[in-house]
Amino acid sequence: MTYRAPVADMLFTLEHAAGLAAARGEGLYAELDRDTLSAILEEAGSFATEKIAPLNAVGDRQGCSLAEGRVSTPEGWAATYKEWAAAGWNTILAEEAHGGQGMPTAVWALASELWSQGSVAFGLCPLLTQGAVEALERHASQELKATWLPKLVSGEWTATMNLTEPQAGSDLALLKARAERAGDGTYRIFGQKIFITYGEHEMADDIVHLVLARLPDAPEGTRGISLFLVPKLLLDESGTPSKRNDVVCAGIEEKLGIHGSPTCTMVYGDKGGATGWLVGEEHRGLACMFTMMNNARLAVGLQGVALAERATQHALAFAHERRQGRAEGVSGAAPIVAHPDVRRMLLTMRAMTAAARGICYRAAVELDRARFSADPNEAKAAQERASLLIPIAKAFGTDIGCEVASLGVQVFGGMGYVEETGAAQFLRDARITPIYEGTNGVQAIDLVTRKLPQSGGETARGVIAGLRASASRAAEAHPQGLGHAARRLDEAVDALESATAWLAAPERTQAEALAGATPYLRLFALAAGGASLVEEALAAAKTNDAEAARSKAAIARFFAENLLTAAAGLELSVTEGAGSLAGEDVEAALAV
Amino acid sequence: MTYRAPVADMLFTLEHAAGLAAARGEGLYAELDRDTLSAILEEAGSFATEKIAPLNAVGDRQGCSLAEGRVSTPEGWAATYKEWAAAGWNTILAEEAHGGQGMPTAVWALASELWSQGSVAFGLCPLLTQGAVEALERHASQELKATWLPKLVSGEWTATMNLTEPQAGSDLALLKARAERAGDGTYRIFGQKIFITYGEHEMADDIVHLVLARLPDAPEGTRGISLFLVPKLLLDESGTPSKRNDVVCAGIEEKLGIHGSPTCTMVYGDKGGATGWLVGEEHRGLACMFTMMNNARLAVGLQGVALAERATQHALAFAHERRQGRAEGVSGAAPIVAHPDVRRMLLTMRAMTAAARGICYRAAVELDRARFSADPNEAKAAQERASLLIPIAKAFGTDIGCEVASLGVQVFGGMGYVEETGAAQFLRDARITPIYEGTNGVQAIDLVTRKLPQSGGETARGVIAGLRASASRAAEAHPQGLGHAARRLDEAVDALESATAWLAAPERTQAEALAGATPYLRLFALAAGGASLVEEALAAAKTNDAEAARSKAAIARFFAENLLTAAAGLELSVTEGAGSLAGEDVEAALAV
Repeated sequence: MTYRAPVADMLFTLEHAAGLAAARGEGLYAELDRDTLSAILEEAGSFATEKIAPLNAVGDRQGCSLAEGRVSTPEGWAATYKEWAAAGWNTILAEEAHGGQGMPTAVWALASELWSQGSVAFGLCPLLTQGAVEALERHASQELKATWLPKLVSGEWTATMNLTEPQAGSDLALLKARAERAGDGTYRIFGQKIFITYGEHEMADDIVHLVLARLPDAPEGTRGISLFLVPKLLLDESGTPSKRNDVVCAGIEEKLGIHGSPTCTMVYGDKGGATGWLVGEEHRGLACMFTMMNNARLAVGLQGVALAERATQHALAFAHERRQGRAEGVSGAAPIVAHPDVRRMLLTMRAMTAAARGICYRAAVELDRARFSADPNEAKAAQERASLLIPIAKAFGTDIGCEVASLGVQVFGGMGYVEETGAAQFLRDARITPIYEGTNGVQAIDLVTRKLPQSGGETARGVIAGLRASASRAAEAHPQGLGHAARRLDEAVDALESATAWLAAPERTQAEALAGATPYLRLFALAAGGASLVEEALAAAKTNDAEAARSKAAIARFFAENLLTAAAGLELSVTEGAGSLAGEDVEAALAV
Repeated sequence: MTYRAPVADMLFTLEHAAGLAAARGEGLYAELDRDTLSAILEEAGSFATEKIAPLNAVGDRQGCSLAEGRVSTPEGWAATYKEWAAAGWNTILAEEAHGGQGMPTAVWALASELWSQGSVAFGLCPLLTQGAVEALERHASQELKATWLPKLVSGEWTATMNLTEPQAGSDLALLKARAERAGDGTYRIFGQKIFITYGEHEMADDIVHLVLARLPDAPEGTRGISLFLVPKLLLDESGTPSKRNDVVCAGIEEKLGIHGSPTCTMVYGDKGGATGWLVGEEHRGLACMFTMMNNARLAVGLQGVALAERATQHALAFAHERRQGRAEGVSGAAPIVAHPDVRRMLLTMRAMTAAARGICYRAAVELDRARFSADPNEAKAAQERASLLIPIAKAFGTDIGCEVASLGVQVFGGMGYVEETGAAQFLRDARITPIYEGTNGVQAIDLVTRKLPQSGGETARGVIAGLRASASRAAEAHPQGLGHAARRLDEAVDALESATAWLAAPERTQAEALAGATPYLRLFALAAGGASLVEEALAAAKTNDAEAARSKAAIARFFAENLLTAAAGLELSVTEGAGSLAGEDVEAALAV
């Protein structure tokens, strides 16, 4: 299977569509010149290509198994993880105080996409560790930080997030896991957690579980949840993991995909209570969890992009080799890439992938502005823009991950349905991404109910004005090959503006806004994706790379003329669809 | 897992959306009164629910295995197949001369959907037998018919279609399997065929392979292909299968889904040549294959619909049970069916399923008009309408099969990704249907290049005029609850008319038409599906069943206001998208 990490292309998107070049102009990223950035990511790309990618099919075939509480991961998994951590890749984002490199989020995001390109199931493990590192950096006591962060940052230990219980998925208010104060400053944790990614394995010397649970005197609902650090192995006095804590893996799930990643049922406290330490304040655990949500959601959006990238490369290579049917200008059987219908599929794959990537990277750059901008107003505005973009990045990145992987299967025809080819694995692996880390429905609700109202709607209006500016630049520059792109983008921005205004109208009910959330998110993503591709095309036209300029123009044009055309229909679904989702008639249609 | 065959609803669609009631008015279906039709299908529904459906998960888990040339099917598969055949279900469509019942295609289509609702992997076996029966009825000699048809019609023997070879998938001109004249009227067959569904198994006493191969003096390309009947076991003088023919199953595929159905590599002639008999004339084998294509494609479209139906029932039941989050008017945690976003998914599932079903059934009724109409002009016109609708039925039915099954996974959230729930199996099983029996790309090309030009475009114009009439009826009747349905349908028909006119314009190049084929098919399907749902709603409003009337109105309205809204964008993809699929820029974008 052919796969190459498209690092140069990723960097081009980061610089010209996501705004890294502009941010440099504002004085950001000063410590990271272009060559260094490129060198780091080329190195990451080599690791993804040479070390991780070869594990992907093996991981799928072998999967994980559980025996006597021990989970074995696929062949090569543990050794490669250790090699990856030893090379320092786990330390990119963490603070320098605990051994991190404190690098920009953009670097971490692109590296993170690269690990997922290699293997999403593999890359999940450090993704969760990173989330725990962030939560501890922000909320843990100095003592907890000193004890746990250095080895979590280095990757010698890994971490998990324990939120879900059988009755509590999207609705954490329903969770039942309990914590009791032990009297010595520690806590005893009891309860069952499900769907715990990398909850148990033997790739690292210890596993740090971050567990949401309720104290006895906790208020009901989400305001009564606390966050605890519960290690698999308790440390001895030298800080070495030694004694088993009262937590066991009671089962692993048989899943549609990501077989290399163990999804565990974790049982806490069957032997008197697992020892845990409070992170942050009592009853404020959910706020701690929200800390890391932006990066985690962005990384999951990039899993979708990464799988789309793999599926696209895979299908494209096949389409150049496989010969079926006749085509103009080809003698004998033509490679199927010559057939318009196959081209439509492949261009959809390329364009969707590039558009979603642009949105994700844009969110990463805004997160960096929020972290590093010297102007607190600008930092706050950037944080809000990032917050606005992240549900779009997560949902659109993962939705197109599935769509592109499914098109990949279709390009392969019958051979795509046979597991041996590998096309089906991309689809199976992708299908979890719209579900975990907040379902895409939850992302759409977040966008409409929490992110649009930021700063009285000013944040959203500002971002949309930026998309309009891209359409205007395209109309003015009018470089060869963009076809109707400027016009289609302008129309899509019209649709987005109207839908946004409709959602923000004072008479709008909560139910109406929620009804339109999913098509609204898609509409926003298409407009933002279209703008991103146009920016790439405009930037490429100014370079000496004629081939890249042609390619970027073709992708921007295809997206605009074939996918942005959905914008007006989506606007109607938002503004007129609510009535069709409620009422007596609908109850009849949804009766069982 | 809850599943009930929705027979009454299927019959309602058949009568009021697909035109069976109207056809009765024309004198068709005279021998099949409503009670008889209903009784037959209720019986089929019971068999599907009670006997076939319980095998579906078992079939997926156990799959098939090959040892020493013998293929074992999952537990219960063979006994249930024999019981099914003994009950006479295989005989519905076949001619009476060979033990068939010669019933209308509509009856067979609905029954066929029911078997697929029970289990697509199970229902595939008789689907292929039926195809062979049709090919033999039309093209085989009297002697071949007398020898082979009775037991194929009864289902005591099953059949396969052997088209694909490693280098010849959609492009049969490339096939290499050879046939030699043996001098005694029989032929010797040599070669390898892949992806042969039910190519080997022990559910029946014999397997009749219909094999495409080339004679030594055959012209190149598709005009040099002949069709042969090659049994697994040759018959002795009493007509009993006895001696092994020179054909073996050399491998079975490990697939994404339909695990209960063995997908075989068949090797012919390794020991001197498999004995075969010519079906039809030499070099005219492809024409024979085309005979059965309409019914087979329709049945595959209905596999998509059937899986969509199963996934919808499954998700709907879960959405009523699963409680997460708060909703207006519900105390405590609300069933997730109360959340607008989940309602949107469920209504999309219901509406897409019902729309695709209406199109498939309409095609079946037109096939019956073509078979049974006393007026040869009307029979010809009906045949052309059926030919026009069938690529739409196949492609849209199977595309929405995948889309709906994927939404089903999403409704289940994390539990949808775990195989135990069964939601993922529907998606895995559905994913083959857009590929086999002519990929959906091939269907779109067929629609645009062969079906639209029928009778100088008159057939398409007539069908589209019928959709316009549905919009007008909705606008006039204006029953409660249809919202903007009439207007949206009218606009969709506008879009379809414009796109059709664009495709038919004399200056249109082949490349332009092919470039727009896939969005055009989708546009046609949406308009036809929207019209079908509106007709159902109008008909239901005239009955005494207030609940059904409400439900049908809600579904028609939802479809129109949320899914038909894509029509204008699809029109643009057809009429303006071609330029973005070709040229130097696109070559750069698709380079590897």
